[in-house]
Amino acid sequence: MSTAWTSRYAQRTKNVRSSAIRELLKITQNPKIISFGGGLPAPDVFPVERFREACNRVLETNGRLALQYSPTEGYEPLREMIARHTSRYGVKAKPEHVLITSGSQQALDLIGKLLINPGDRVLVEAPTYLGALQAFNVYGAEYVCVPSDQDGLRTDLLEEPLRSGPKFMYVLPNFQNPGGTTLAEGRRHELVLLADRFGIPIIEDDPYGQLRYEGEHLPPLVVLDRENLRGDKGYSIGNVVYLSTFSKTLAPGLRLGWIVAPPDIISKLVQLKQGADLHTSTFGQMVAYEVARDGFLDEHIKLIRRVYGERRNVMLDALAEFCPPEVSWTRPMGGLFLWVTLPVGMDCHRLFDAAIKENVAFVAGDAFYAGNGYAHEGLRHLRLNFSNAQPEQIREGIRRLALAIKNQMAGLHPEPVGD
Amino acid sequence: MSTAWTSRYAQRTKNVRSSAIRELLKITQNPKIISFGGGLPAPDVFPVERFREACNRVLETNGRLALQYSPTEGYEPLREMIARHTSRYGVKAKPEHVLITSGSQQALDLIGKLLINPGDRVLVEAPTYLGALQAFNVYGAEYVCVPSDQDGLRTDLLEEPLRSGPKFMYVLPNFQNPGGTTLAEGRRHELVLLADRFGIPIIEDDPYGQLRYEGEHLPPLVVLDRENLRGDKGYSIGNVVYLSTFSKTLAPGLRLGWIVAPPDIISKLVQLKQGADLHTSTFGQMVAYEVARDGFLDEHIKLIRRVYGERRNVMLDALAEFCPPEVSWTRPMGGLFLWVTLPVGMDCHRLFDAAIKENVAFVAGDAFYAGNGYAHEGLRHLRLNFSNAQPEQIREGIRRLALAIKNQMAGLHPEPVGD
Repeated sequence: MSTAWTSRYAQRTKNVRSSAIRELLKITQNPKIISFGGGLPAPDVFPVERFREACNRVLETNGRLALQYSPTEGYEPLREMIARHTSRYGVKAKPEHVLITSGSQQALDLIGKLLINPGDRVLVEAPTYLGALQAFNVYGAEYVCVPSDQDGLRTDLLEEPLRSGPKFMYVLPNFQNPGGTTLAEGRRHELVLLADRFGIPIIEDDPYGQLRYEGEHLPPLVVLDRENLRGDKGYSIGNVVYLSTFSKTLAPGLRLGWIVAPPDIISKLVQLKQGADLHTSTFGQMVAYEVARDGFLDEHIKLIRRVYGERRNVMLDALAEFCPPEVSWTRPMGGLFLWVTLPVGMDCHRLFDAAIKENVAFVAGDAFYAGNGYAHEGLRHLRLNFSNAQPEQIREGIRRLALAIKNQMAGLHPEPVGD
Repeated sequence: MSTAWTSRYAQRTKNVRSSAIRELLKITQNPKIISFGGGLPAPDVFPVERFREACNRVLETNGRLALQYSPTEGYEPLREMIARHTSRYGVKAKPEHVLITSGSQQALDLIGKLLINPGDRVLVEAPTYLGALQAFNVYGAEYVCVPSDQDGLRTDLLEEPLRSGPKFMYVLPNFQNPGGTTLAEGRRHELVLLADRFGIPIIEDDPYGQLRYEGEHLPPLVVLDRENLRGDKGYSIGNVVYLSTFSKTLAPGLRLGWIVAPPDIISKLVQLKQGADLHTSTFGQMVAYEVARDGFLDEHIKLIRRVYGERRNVMLDALAEFCPPEVSWTRPMGGLFLWVTLPVGMDCHRLFDAAIKENVAFVAGDAFYAGNGYAHEGLRHLRLNFSNAQPEQIREGIRRLALAIKNQMAGLHPEPVGD
């Protein structure tokens, strides 16, 4: 008798499929294709030489420590640095409030493991980050979706969904993925107050917060929650857990993210992380610390802002130049993405096939909607990444994309065909 | 209203607690303590200089690739190297049968995610690796325990447990953790046949297989399953999934392990890993490849065998010299651990407290038993690690431990106290 493994797969695997983005990576290996698909940082700004120096320093001075097992919580100097660094953005965490994770994706997985029973509902923005959906799906999450507009989550529509008792809210306030929108300051206050009133905790995901190209930094939800509602009690209580990462500021290949949370939550997450991967690479953490220290990270972020800000402008200009007037898009003040809306009746998957023939790629919008009610809405959208390609490629890619869009639009209202 | 997070924790978190070993790390930070507790490799054999050269080479020639996102399956040259390497041990895998994981612990977590529904029973050895129990517990596993003796799992006791229909078996055939025992060749054949007969798949965990200090290499279960039962069909079918790691041969701080499995299982595991951490550190994988290549890993393993083999001998000799005759222990032919059995009536936790006062530490045996029926049995055992301490420390540590044991034994039969 030979075993049929598939018959033994756990129930939860039925909720799991490969992410549209990871699959897209395979198509976009073709060097002729200009890809706006992935959320890839620009490799040309990676501080490779600084990394080389950091590796040498870590291995020369601390090699045995760097290659050994280490505490699940993370490398202490890195936790301290993150606590100091986030404090400057208002998130006044202490090192014991910081858990280092194997990328932000692991933070999402641990949050799902910690909070979601099969059938629990999670309140998410529509659209929202598909990596979060992928992490939560495996734990059997269902979703309550709340629409967004150019000022982010529609807090005026929140009361009823909150009253229905979701387990928690998952929100990306800054330069949202995929929308590119930023939650307005007034809405942030409102969101935190509503969450407190209904007793629904918030997971605040902030991978891009420091990559702002215009406007002023807005206070994170975790800060408003503490300052407005908890007084001086710091992180011993709080309704918001905050996630961030080095993937967009240093390098995603390291897989280094973090969670800021009250100590009792950190302690439970540490237990879950022990079972998940014991700890994140000691060497990777020590190298990241060496790279980031002495103010380098701040300087490097300035460079990234300059480079990505320019690329965003190039994309916005090219969209305005090449796209027909029926197409619209968001104007992100930071981050890596913008969100395109196609005319009614168009289908982003058919457009995708046409675009690939023109050697340009994007992510189809429907991947970013959790609820079934949004399948139709999702088909009218595309997510475009502007951080990865060079400016001249961005312009050329948008030209090709606009061509594909025009051809599809012509197909919607075909000219009468003669004989 | 402030949120009580703990009231929102998922059901599965009730099965989770911090591992005895991770907690022990904190006690053993004290430099006066000689610790036989952790499963730590010897840092003095880490090839630090080779790592430094590898980092420089990777960053000089391939820096942008090394710091970027990469495929979930793993770095292709590393997958190829692992396939070649394991082929020499009889595991004739192709690169597409290999999934790189963030340490072996993640492999265990992914296996749990893939296979375990709450309440499913997993057949394990008694005792077994507690990291596996920790990984499986979170998915609601229950356990069927089968005893071991000096030749490993008692296959003569397997039929009834297999007939009861566990979801899968989890087995460590080589230099078992914690037992230090090796599954005899005859039992390997028997195990594979029985598993096939009852249609119960096997997870074969082999972190130490290459660290053999005496005797001949025995064929892995995955090889016997294929050769004896599947003929020439390679890995397209098979009843055994094989796990291994670089933690004991190169460095645990990198968190690099792997799974060898048929392609359809790899493909499902890839989806689960996407949601768990997207992929393992690109940089870490490329550096490990550069370190291991050109035969270095084989040479390095020879060095480790020499060093650890000597330390094992020192520990065995010291146990014989210092321990009272009522105490017995296993004689491992490889790996990192041996397993001590105390006289009836002794309690390893009380011994632990006494040992800490003598500045020596170990892991209490009950942590390694899954079933409730073994609580009493577990208290009679200790796990000792012989890879981490220097030979002279090992001798001194065993002297102290034996002293603590003798004092406890005296307490079992106290002399009448005069006035």
